[in-house]
Amino acid sequence: MLARYALAAGAALCLSVMPLLADPLPSWRDTEAKARIVAFVESVTDPASDQYVTPPDRIAVFDNDGTLWAEKPFYFQLLYAIDRVREKAEADPSILNSDALKAAANGDVEGLLAHGKEGLLEVLAVSHSGVSVDAFQADVRDWLESTRHPTTGMAYNEMLYQPMLELLAYLRDEDFSTWIVSGGGVHFIRAFAAEAYGIPPHQVVGSVGPADYEANGAPAILKEPGIFFINDKAGKPLAIDSRIGKRPIFAAGNSDGDFQMLEWTTAGDGPRFGMIVHHTDGAREFAYDRESPVGKLVRGLDEGPDRGWLIVDMAEDWGRVWPVSP
Amino acid sequence: MLARYALAAGAALCLSVMPLLADPLPSWRDTEAKARIVAFVESVTDPASDQYVTPPDRIAVFDNDGTLWAEKPFYFQLLYAIDRVREKAEADPSILNSDALKAAANGDVEGLLAHGKEGLLEVLAVSHSGVSVDAFQADVRDWLESTRHPTTGMAYNEMLYQPMLELLAYLRDEDFSTWIVSGGGVHFIRAFAAEAYGIPPHQVVGSVGPADYEANGAPAILKEPGIFFINDKAGKPLAIDSRIGKRPIFAAGNSDGDFQMLEWTTAGDGPRFGMIVHHTDGAREFAYDRESPVGKLVRGLDEGPDRGWLIVDMAEDWGRVWPVSP
Ligand SMILES: [Ca+2]
Ligand SMILES: [Ca+2]
Repeated sequence: MLARYALAAGAALCLSVMPLLADPLPSWRDTEAKARIVAFVESVTDPASDQYVTPPDRIAVFDNDGTLWAEKPFYFQLLYAIDRVREKAEADPSILNSDALKAAANGDVEGLLAHGKEGLLEVLAVSHSGVSVDAFQADVRDWLESTRHPTTGMAYNEMLYQPMLELLAYLRDEDFSTWIVSGGGVHFIRAFAAEAYGIPPHQVVGSVGPADYEANGAPAILKEPGIFFINDKAGKPLAIDSRIGKRPIFAAGNSDGDFQMLEWTTAGDGPRFGMIVHHTDGAREFAYDRESPVGKLVRGLDEGPDRGWLIVDMAEDWGRVWPVSP
Repeated sequence: MLARYALAAGAALCLSVMPLLADPLPSWRDTEAKARIVAFVESVTDPASDQYVTPPDRIAVFDNDGTLWAEKPFYFQLLYAIDRVREKAEADPSILNSDALKAAANGDVEGLLAHGKEGLLEVLAVSHSGVSVDAFQADVRDWLESTRHPTTGMAYNEMLYQPMLELLAYLRDEDFSTWIVSGGGVHFIRAFAAEAYGIPPHQVVGSVGPADYEANGAPAILKEPGIFFINDKAGKPLAIDSRIGKRPIFAAGNSDGDFQMLEWTTAGDGPRFGMIVHHTDGAREFAYDRESPVGKLVRGLDEGPDRGWLIVDMAEDWGRVWPVSP
């Protein structure tokens, strides 16, 4: 009996010390949110658990704007597009041939949005087309390096959520594949996703514009005006099916544009996890939900808890927000 | 000097013995084709070589029909579609409301093809829509298990090319990712690709039909009639860009539908490999190229050699064709 007691004491010592040494989510406070995430991951990765999921089926999908990085005052891709319209108009004012483009060049985002989808397509046509994919992504990286956010003064690609970076790494350490499933443009996100999130290009699923394959001279993929596929709302489960070909077991989002992705993910058999990042932290980040023009969150708040989805309270559940102090 | 000679002799012994022990391509005869493939793989995987490519960039793309499995007398997916039209018409003859559908139900493939794309879309609407993705793929697997090829008597999913299976495995062993980039439907190919080729769903890029996300009751992805994206010719590099997001370093195809994929792949900087499987073996498989209604190959034969592409002569370069003797 003495030997067994000694063994038990040793095991208890290990159990109490190990988590402190190897907390995979140090920027998450010790609230229910963190406990639920860890309990889920531990159950689906434990071969002895009836909740065990084999690694190829450990698919985790993440919205990007407002889930992995910030989206205020407006989607960063839109701020990029507006910057580029303004720059091009300085060189050639004749390109401002619509009220939407004039609003964009004046930095009047609300005025631009008043023109709806048509206005946005005009801005995208000027800023996102007539260029090769390679040149476009180089330009996006230039912009990310040289531009600063209007209120935080941080580079846009510093405005990543440290707790979500830790969650991505934790899941990958546990043999999940991590995917971005975003309404943002796939070429835009890929320009920084590998460096920012450790997510390779093929695991970025986004909205897609038309493109043309040009083989006179050195072959190139050229971005064209218009929109081919909008990866939002019901488009997200459709893109997951078309691109990943399996139903995820873990999905995280922050707005009602993610509702169907979480619904599709969590309606599957076996263990499932749905998470909504709720922007409650006006002091460290931004506080918004039901009334916001970006990241509008109504149905997720109303129905999410009853569906078993975790509503992450940024102010309460996150010990820090940014990777680097602003 | 004695020590150096001894070392050289030992090295020679290793070099002569190792390949015999571990030939990665045993069904390829010892012709130039095999030598070129092995030389390419060895150079891009050798960290001391100036041709070295890091594993994330070791992307290899393969056409499917006629490249990884057979395609005669017609694409197997078309034979599946025709079988399903005939079965549905037996239960409800009123569905045969066009000449194209009547030709399909009569097994008259040439008659069906005479109606062009519209006729094919009618057949696909009957055989490939109004069904969930899950149910469709279960049905495809049923068909693959229960149907036999009209001339070989083999199951369709036995009509894989053993040398290509070895090539896929060899590349994966050398830390390549292997992708299917096919004009076939993505849901159809995924129904068997994991088992047949060891290629997971997300690495299958194919043509895509419209789909609908339905959430009344248990959420489902429903296949709809029509075509959303045709993954052929210039569509292949566009899909590679949209889906993989990097230019491959290795591409294999068998028809002029693969021309742009090989062009795009081999026009990149650094080491590149383009391969065309030329169907020269009427005894063991089928002999066809310039005049064939499936797998038509003209430009690839005319321009491929000057572009440095390997033209694989199935009759000469392959020691065996099928995994199992017919
Ligand atoms: Ca969002
Ligand atoms: Ca082919």
